[in-house]
Amino acid sequence: MSTVEELKLRVRELENELIKYAAAAGGGAHRRPRIDKMSAEVVDSNPYSRLMALKRMGIVDDYERIRTFSVAVVGVGGVGSVTAEMLTRCGIGKLLLFDYDKVELANMNRLFFQPHQAGLSKVEAAERTLRNINPDVVFETHNYNITTVDNFTRFMDRISHGGLQEGAPVDLVLSCVDNFEARMAINTACNELGQIWMESGVSENAVSGHIQLIIPGETACFACAPPLVVAANIDEKTLKREGVCAASLPTTMGVVAGLLVQNVLKYLLNFGTVSRYLGYNAMQDFFPSMSMKANPQCDDRYCRLRQEEFQAERPKQDEVLDMEEQQVIHEDNEWGIELVSEVTEAELQAASGPVPDLPEGITVAYTIPEEKGHAASDGAVVEDSEQSLEELMAQMSRM
Amino acid sequence: MSTVEELKLRVRELENELIKYAAAAGGGAHRRPRIDKMSAEVVDSNPYSRLMALKRMGIVDDYERIRTFSVAVVGVGGVGSVTAEMLTRCGIGKLLLFDYDKVELANMNRLFFQPHQAGLSKVEAAERTLRNINPDVVFETHNYNITTVDNFTRFMDRISHGGLQEGAPVDLVLSCVDNFEARMAINTACNELGQIWMESGVSENAVSGHIQLIIPGETACFACAPPLVVAANIDEKTLKREGVCAASLPTTMGVVAGLLVQNVLKYLLNFGTVSRYLGYNAMQDFFPSMSMKANPQCDDRYCRLRQEEFQAERPKQDEVLDMEEQQVIHEDNEWGIELVSEVTEAELQAASGPVPDLPEGITVAYTIPEEKGHAASDGAVVEDSEQSLEELMAQMSRM
Repeated sequence: MSTVEELKLRVRELENELIKYAAAAGGGAHRRPRIDKMSAEVVDSNPYSRLMALKRMGIVDDYERIRTFSVAVVGVGGVGSVTAEMLTRCGIGKLLLFDYDKVELANMNRLFFQPHQAGLSKVEAAERTLRNINPDVVFETHNYNITTVDNFTRFMDRISHGGLQEGAPVDLVLSCVDNFEARMAINTACNELGQIWMESGVSENAVSGHIQLIIPGETACFACAPPLVVAANIDEKTLKREGVCAASLPTTMGVVAGLLVQNVLKYLLNFGTVSRYLGYNAMQDFFPSMSMKANPQCDDRYCRLRQEEFQAERPKQDEVLDMEEQQVIHEDNEWGIELVSEVTEAELQAASGPVPDLPEGITVAYTIPEEKGHAASDGAVVEDSEQSLEELMAQMSRM
Repeated sequence: MSTVEELKLRVRELENELIKYAAAAGGGAHRRPRIDKMSAEVVDSNPYSRLMALKRMGIVDDYERIRTFSVAVVGVGGVGSVTAEMLTRCGIGKLLLFDYDKVELANMNRLFFQPHQAGLSKVEAAERTLRNINPDVVFETHNYNITTVDNFTRFMDRISHGGLQEGAPVDLVLSCVDNFEARMAINTACNELGQIWMESGVSENAVSGHIQLIIPGETACFACAPPLVVAANIDEKTLKREGVCAASLPTTMGVVAGLLVQNVLKYLLNFGTVSRYLGYNAMQDFFPSMSMKANPQCDDRYCRLRQEEFQAERPKQDEVLDMEEQQVIHEDNEWGIELVSEVTEAELQAASGPVPDLPEGITVAYTIPEEKGHAASDGAVVEDSEQSLEELMAQMSRM
């Protein structure tokens, strides 16, 4: 085929094909235009009408403020990618995405990534999709592992200077990582910077998860106590075999991402009550909640410094706090942890022993790492375990 | 430009462009191949490895059974689209999608649909995306409103014959619609067919939602009692103005879809406890749960027929039931509703009066429609109201 007529026909065919694909892929000309000012106008073409309606419904005073916030999402996997998508669709001002992994077909049992993205870096694939969904959001991507020494410094710099205003810090850091080392790196950075952050996690058996708000100096950080997770209520012998591939479900990860971003919205836009710790037990549809104060004996010196600052500020804050929450203070235990629990006083008094009284359904995730309080940048892997608090105490006393 | 050389160059350009778009859109050759048999092999290229790991973790006995099930999703909006995506990624056997709406930019504040799909029918756009994500799933789409007389008949036919085996019924119907009329049509169909279904709903103010399991003859249907919703805990004067555009959030809808599909998986694959009624109050992160038995005075004659069948079967089932749940039976009230609540007996005894004792955080969604028990195919719009049970009782006695 090489006559002019045949070639012209072929060009027309290809152009038509291209228009179809461009429409399906949301590329270039078919992307929606950027919107300068959020409007509440109720028309089909307004992507913000149902969000601005939150004002009319009496839920949020000033929804447009969402555009002034910058949020860092560390880990763009099963929870982080959905978290980033929700924030993008809500019209967040800026998103900073951190991950060093590639998209694989093995990720297709969770929301967000699609098979044709296999092989792309997660942050690159995520940015491309998210920019199509909402071109009003500013994206900044970082394709590296934050736990190496150099990258940790770069990470610290972006947290403290990645805000929308030139040189300002981000407004919130979200941990959506799947390992202890990365969580500890975020913990170390946020303690040093006094940066408020939220943690999220999903169990290896895919049927429980949690979110947690960490306010340096005020609530327990990851070096203050072993991280808390939702109790499995499953025969432990069938679980946690060395080197076994973790299970995951789009449901559990979607729920955890939804609860996380809902609390981000409540925190940023000032409505409802922001949960300190909220668990999700999918087997029983049970949602334990609690709150834990910072440990004065924490090994992280920046945590202790933030605690001193918080105590110095405290007299001013006491009145507000007393109105906000009923504090149930417990006698000091061997870890020096005090619990502020959302369960009733009777339930707490029923608990006994020197260990923290954890509400029903919450347990510890890890044994205390040998060098707790430092960013786990030495590559040591801390095993996820299902030990009881008693076993854990016995183990600690043997150290 | 019309020389042969120029045209050949143009053809090459267009072909290259097309390959790029095809890759980005996941079209044709770049779609993943179909997989005949689910494998547990832990390799990056296996989209089912993390789901099959649920067996090794002791959560699910036989995950592969997921491929034998057929699920109908009615309403492919903020909850239904995410529900369909989760089931697709879990490798469900077959999905039947029902919706008559088009994708609009105004839907972009919820997950799933993307701006380039604006103008497409929701079921068509959904099928295209879902087929790319998992070509192993069988899709059947229905682009019509199930509440008209003709379409209701077609809907009944597909529910009773849309299973994977020729002529078999579907295994489960999921209601993800946003109006009373459509819920009543599903209720009527499922009562007549004895079809187990699950309901989902999100409030107009976007900050609460619920899921509910309906087993015809056993649990309360939508004609047995006013539907229950999660209490708003918000000043009612700021809410529910006539004709106001409802607010919505990707977070609330993602959480409700996640809880719904998690319960679908528990029901189909036989693990954990399937919730009868589970609410989500996003302002307080509060999750009320309960269970309500069918009303012997229900206006839906098929509901009463299913109740007779259930009672006839009951002697055989009693032992199992007694082991499964503690039943707290209440004295008959004016509606003839008995409650089987998941709250403690003490909490129930503390409640008084002839109205059903609803657990904290749950209230009624609607006033009883004047012609309750019929498929609301007359186009009457039933208003969402925040009336107390007392007001509702008073209003009913005036009828």
